[in-house]
Amino acid sequence: MSEPQIPDFQRGGGLLPAIAQDAHSGRVLMLAWMNREAFEETLTTGRAVYYSRSRQRLWRKGEESGHYQKVVDVSIDCDADAILVRVEQTGAACHEGYASCFFRTLGVDGSVSIHEPRLVDPAKAYGRGQAS
Amino acid sequence: MSEPQIPDFQRGGGLLPAIAQDAHSGRVLMLAWMNREAFEETLTTGRAVYYSRSRQRLWRKGEESGHYQKVVDVSIDCDADAILVRVEQTGAACHEGYASCFFRTLGVDGSVSIHEPRLVDPAKAYGRGQAS
Repeated sequence: MSEPQIPDFQRGGGLLPAIAQDAHSGRVLMLAWMNREAFEETLTTGRAVYYSRSRQRLWRKGEESGHYQKVVDVSIDCDADAILVRVEQTGAACHEGYASCFFRTLGVDGSVSIHEPRLVDPAKAYGRGQAS
Repeated sequence: MSEPQIPDFQRGGGLLPAIAQDAHSGRVLMLAWMNREAFEETLTTGRAVYYSRSRQRLWRKGEESGHYQKVVDVSIDCDADAILVRVEQTGAACHEGYASCFFRTLGVDGSVSIHEPRLVDPAKAYGRGQAS
């Protein structure tokens, strides 16, 4: 069995899902996307860089909000088509002001609950909403 | 601002990325995909169900390997286009026998390293390779 490209951007049509996880708390902070350029810049600069599908350009996390992600390490999965970046997060990962973008828990009955406070006022940190 | 559908499968063209995280260790185990049917079955049965893009059918995690994922809770992100499932994992999440599919760490120089042992012999757990 030949080793896959690391990571294999061809399998993702140029974009692969990238999970950001807080290296200290273990909390999953967000899911974004990387193309090869974003991935390589993430590795070489040590700061998380994604590709914004909505803006169709590189998204250097924190460039507007100041909420940078310092990279601790980068892993790929068995199929080489998903990326995990463990980071030290400055401020709040989510553009809505929460520590993690995954702040809503779903119930079997379709209910939605939020069990945590906002860390920051999103209006002060972000002007135009989160890239995604 | 209207609330998005929870989760918004239209945004993902019917499929959204779903992160499985070990509820006890906090380790990110795998990234797979869910369609609405997989998502709803996950919530109602309490066992993680994904949609296999390679097999183009529902993939009830553990159906071949016995390595089930018991659901602890399910969250969605701010844009409602990514799913996080915290689970109690039976056996190894990865079809290669590792606890997590993210067993390869990448270096800035392009190097790849593995810092953990296999938990199980993949040939004994899986016949045809992991769905993805």
